[in-house]
Amino acid sequence: MKIKIAIVGASGYTGAELLRILANHPQAQIVYLSSESKSGIPLSQIYPHLLSVYKDNFVPMQTVLDNAKDLDLVFTALPHGHSIKIAKAVLPFARMIDLGADYRFSDIKTYEAWYKVSHDHPGSGAVYGLCELYAPKIKQARLVANPGCYTTASILSLHPLLKAGLIETDSIVISAASGTTGAGRALKLSSHFSEVFENFSAYGVASHRHTPEIEEQLSISAGEKIALTFTPHLAPMARGILADCYGQAKSGVGYGDIKKAFEIYGDKPFIRLLGNVSPSTKNTRGSNFVDLGYFLDERTGRVIVLAALDNLVKGASGQAVQNMNLMFGVDEQTGLGFAPIYP
Amino acid sequence: MKIKIAIVGASGYTGAELLRILANHPQAQIVYLSSESKSGIPLSQIYPHLLSVYKDNFVPMQTVLDNAKDLDLVFTALPHGHSIKIAKAVLPFARMIDLGADYRFSDIKTYEAWYKVSHDHPGSGAVYGLCELYAPKIKQARLVANPGCYTTASILSLHPLLKAGLIETDSIVISAASGTTGAGRALKLSSHFSEVFENFSAYGVASHRHTPEIEEQLSISAGEKIALTFTPHLAPMARGILADCYGQAKSGVGYGDIKKAFEIYGDKPFIRLLGNVSPSTKNTRGSNFVDLGYFLDERTGRVIVLAALDNLVKGASGQAVQNMNLMFGVDEQTGLGFAPIYP
Amino acid sequence: MKIKIAIVGASGYTGAELLRILANHPQAQIVYLSSESKSGIPLSQIYPHLLSVYKDNFVPMQTVLDNAKDLDLVFTALPHGHSIKIAKAVLPFARMIDLGADYRFSDIKTYEAWYKVSHDHPGSGAVYGLCELYAPKIKQARLVANPGCYTTASILSLHPLLKAGLIETDSIVISAASGTTGAGRALKLSSHFSEVFENFSAYGVASHRHTPEIEEQLSISAGEKIALTFTPHLAPMARGILADCYGQAKSGVGYGDIKKAFEIYGDKPFIRLLGNVSPSTKNTRGSNFVDLGYFLDERTGRVIVLAALDNLVKGASGQAVQNMNLMFGVDEQTGLGFAPIYP
Amino acid sequence: MKIKIAIVGASGYTGAELLRILANHPQAQIVYLSSESKSGIPLSQIYPHLLSVYKDNFVPMQTVLDNAKDLDLVFTALPHGHSIKIAKAVLPFARMIDLGADYRFSDIKTYEAWYKVSHDHPGSGAVYGLCELYAPKIKQARLVANPGCYTTASILSLHPLLKAGLIETDSIVISAASGTTGAGRALKLSSHFSEVFENFSAYGVASHRHTPEIEEQLSISAGEKIALTFTPHLAPMARGILADCYGQAKSGVGYGDIKKAFEIYGDKPFIRLLGNVSPSTKNTRGSNFVDLGYFLDERTGRVIVLAALDNLVKGASGQAVQNMNLMFGVDEQTGLGFAPIYP
Repeated sequence: MKIKIAIVGASGYTGAELLRILANHPQAQIVYLSSESKSGIPLSQIYPHLLSVYKDNFVPMQTVLDNAKDLDLVFTALPHGHSIKIAKAVLPFARMIDLGADYRFSDIKTYEAWYKVSHDHPGSGAVYGLCELYAPKIKQARLVANPGCYTTASILSLHPLLKAGLIETDSIVISAASGTTGAGRALKLSSHFSEVFENFSAYGVASHRHTPEIEEQLSISAGEKIALTFTPHLAPMARGILADCYGQAKSGVGYGDIKKAFEIYGDKPFIRLLGNVSPSTKNTRGSNFVDLGYFLDERTGRVIVLAALDNLVKGASGQAVQNMNLMFGVDEQTGLGFAPIYP
Repeated sequence: MKIKIAIVGASGYTGAELLRILANHPQAQIVYLSSESKSGIPLSQIYPHLLSVYKDNFVPMQTVLDNAKDLDLVFTALPHGHSIKIAKAVLPFARMIDLGADYRFSDIKTYEAWYKVSHDHPGSGAVYGLCELYAPKIKQARLVANPGCYTTASILSLHPLLKAGLIETDSIVISAASGTTGAGRALKLSSHFSEVFENFSAYGVASHRHTPEIEEQLSISAGEKIALTFTPHLAPMARGILADCYGQAKSGVGYGDIKKAFEIYGDKPFIRLLGNVSPSTKNTRGSNFVDLGYFLDERTGRVIVLAALDNLVKGASGQAVQNMNLMFGVDEQTGLGFAPIYP
Repeated sequence: MKIKIAIVGASGYTGAELLRILANHPQAQIVYLSSESKSGIPLSQIYPHLLSVYKDNFVPMQTVLDNAKDLDLVFTALPHGHSIKIAKAVLPFARMIDLGADYRFSDIKTYEAWYKVSHDHPGSGAVYGLCELYAPKIKQARLVANPGCYTTASILSLHPLLKAGLIETDSIVISAASGTTGAGRALKLSSHFSEVFENFSAYGVASHRHTPEIEEQLSISAGEKIALTFTPHLAPMARGILADCYGQAKSGVGYGDIKKAFEIYGDKPFIRLLGNVSPSTKNTRGSNFVDLGYFLDERTGRVIVLAALDNLVKGASGQAVQNMNLMFGVDEQTGLGFAPIYP
Repeated sequence: MKIKIAIVGASGYTGAELLRILANHPQAQIVYLSSESKSGIPLSQIYPHLLSVYKDNFVPMQTVLDNAKDLDLVFTALPHGHSIKIAKAVLPFARMIDLGADYRFSDIKTYEAWYKVSHDHPGSGAVYGLCELYAPKIKQARLVANPGCYTTASILSLHPLLKAGLIETDSIVISAASGTTGAGRALKLSSHFSEVFENFSAYGVASHRHTPEIEEQLSISAGEKIALTFTPHLAPMARGILADCYGQAKSGVGYGDIKKAFEIYGDKPFIRLLGNVSPSTKNTRGSNFVDLGYFLDERTGRVIVLAALDNLVKGASGQAVQNMNLMFGVDEQTGLGFAPIYP
């Protein structure tokens, strides 16, 4: 059985990464790659690394919409605000995984407030595609909202602590760093080599859009409304996210409790539990792994969880394929068994 | 008037950076460069970038000790535990600025507990050389302990808030990243290019030795004992430190209060106040500037201060020269007027 | 059918890369990983990126030698001079692919002159494992000498021109650049992050040991003895080789002749012919591809061939697996079908 | 005495580098910074690293032209084709140093053929501003054409050999690599961080515009018309150029002859002669030095000269200031005495 697939917005980095992964997925059959700006152009002209791997040309998005009935699955890798129209056209015929932000929020008002657009697809039935938390729902879903990269790292770090009630819910600070692919292929001064090189800086301080996404999910974990501080940084590298997550331990909580809380991930194939060892982005590069290290600062009673992942894989396209696997009933690890590339 | 100078431990990166800066200092006269391992070798063989800038050979440390009476100032740039012997020999004849950790603590017990060595020079009279806070004492000092790099960034960030009583003293988290020069020139796997490249990771979680140094100084600022959480990271770049400092605002504190607190630095030539703009390490590279940005996360009531500096300049050798200027009564900015090198 | 494999010298970068590739090779069964210095230690402690991918511990080399009769294939990834002893012990029982230099020369005197060691294994029957040139011999070989990284790029670039007699044989200049993994994991100042970063430099000028290896092979292509100039460089990146190869076109040679000469590679699955487009190391990263671009500088009559590859894959471990496939009669591309990782 | 200066095109990297250098030049007085696109905006908003170093706003170019009579010197740092209009307006009142390509060619036809624009300022009297070769003429010049970055490295490498007649004039190959600042601050995919990072590639093969500039100058050195092959590369770093220059030694030429030829630079303050040691771009970073290493490959009779410099300093703005010093009769090294920044 082959899953017949279209990728809408295939000319960005998450699109290219989907293609890299799906090239070795035994069930995947790429039917259409669409890109409005590159329509008619061979993929290998835009991404020469895929020369001889794919021979396809980009098609216009409309071709995908017109042929949705012949597809099993559409991946959308677009800027926010552009997936809703596609979902409405595609969902009657095929399933869909959206790598953008449009369907990540249960609370549409929160989405509208942070993204400054209106959302006219309530009741979409979208499921939040964080596989380690929502696999049963994902298997049934027709529309999956693939989580953000910072979000995946942050939620997986704090979910066990909040679920187990180990930290004060008003004490959470997340300081995270990402490589430049997180900002995509669009040209801007903040992604210009000479500017990023030998530079480390924060951005979106107290205002980044991944904040409410993290909060909504962690509120579910905690069973109460959570507000937290999130600071993203740009590191001079292409791939990788490291998230530091801080929370004040509740009275009486010891390191044993923390360790035990993380056993919730014991059977998850893509989560590697390091205990009190620091993870490194490089150890996950090119793979779908999330590495988690967790510490208790005994002097201050603060819990520190560190998560490392590849923002284009577990933070985007790898998780999207993991979602596809769950949705189509194939083994969760299919096509995702490649080891990290090191060094 | 020339200041006759010896640098002990001149073959490391902070030694080399001192030499770069002092090459254009109108009052500096380098008399001796010492290195035990490189004794007899020309400086330009170890540091070819200084070819034609300096023609000196390294001498053994004993040469410096034997000739201390002909010197005005000795810089020591050595691993901890090695400066005390030198201080005892040199101080009767010359002044000294120690770039290591040996004299940074008023509380010698704290030093001994964190550095695992005994300290047999109590009553050294050492002054903590954070120029923006202690200039009057530094001017009189015979022995100055140059602060650590993370420490300089962290203290300058939080001092105004604690001095003004704006944040809860038990709520402080510092997450900071440094380039690789902070780990020196000694060979180790964690400084090996192939390992560091495209990697971002934390180290010394809940156990880094700069923690008690920051705490001791900030306790003075706050007028009460402070314990905090400090997490250093290694970023894939050679120079630069960015420190994120988080603290819970006390009830009623607004952004205006924060802004006003930072005016304490209004007349400091090397501090640039950015308000609610994020600093970048690259904007300070090669210079003695510290760039400070400060924010109030209104949703959580958390204050976020970000500090950027060059770890080898304001975080080490530049501040050492600034201390020298204060000690010898020349203008604080002498020899330090070079602009950042960008990009 | 499984190929039972030992890797001797598995703790270096080429060993780690073999493990990454073989983890997804359907015929490969890793029986032993040996490392003298890491014997008894889990692989995942030395290479945490392989945690949960392999659960093996390193064994001493002697374990491999003692159990050679239960093996099909031994890979050796050792510094030069160390493989001969192993070959002699292993070859009676198993086949061997040596990733070092010991068996790359037909002319043992050349080897001894450039490597300054004596070679007591003449008549080893080793075949030079450049798959695109020697597949028929490799299929029959018991011992394969896997080519060097610079060498693979250089020979594949110039072989078509020399075979077709298009350039003057005394006019060849090769200027090539490599990432730092080419220098291995051993600690040295020239691989120290702070030194390599933002640096580009040549090394081994007119004296690098890959020179005679390139010359011996290209002399076979040309049917006459060739001497050439080869200059390697270190680029501030982890992976990748780009080789510029220059030769004076013989009188009357046009671009059509050059283009036609490269059609010799028309059916080779890992060679991508770009025509007069410049290849980039990044387009081959993590894959077994070699990208070749070729130009005629009409103003000077000079032919310029540019080759890009990943030094750890096609320049080492990928080619070793390609050799294994040929030797064991499985499809040449088995386990090597992964796409480049970009960006 | 102050030199009253305007910089036209001050918002690019060479403009910013001029400002960095001139900030510490005792004779320089910046009167105007012009930028059409940034007119009215504070310099420190476009280049935050210069905050507190300069307080100027950008003015329109017309302001400079209107006030030329109050200026001593105008630097132009513009794309080719834009300096001619300015030269005509400014030269009646002030001297000018053009950092672009417009005045670098004696043979205007060559310029027009390679740059595809017409040049209506013959007889401009422009002097080629390679200080080590043309200081006497530069001192008298009203208009100086500052050489290109690759060009400076290449000419300084080969001039001694050609002047002394040591190499065959039809045998020259130059393979050179540059950091990304050579491509400026304008946004393009080939300067996008994610694309450049961990990448090494050639560009402009057999067609780069610095080729005829190098040829024209080296033809003067050789006393005969020279055509050569020049291949530029992009290295994943911000600053630095390394040029490899190859030429066939004439019969009977030994290493002693080569060494002697380079003594022509014995008294040049910014040239460092390394003999048969490879230079590194990093050893020159941030400084006006050119490091030259030279070798004879005895096996092939090929001479190899390697030159390293900082493309923004000796390859652009530093050399421009050196030209200014010569033109205004101040010591050539004034304001250029800063040491390289390492690491």
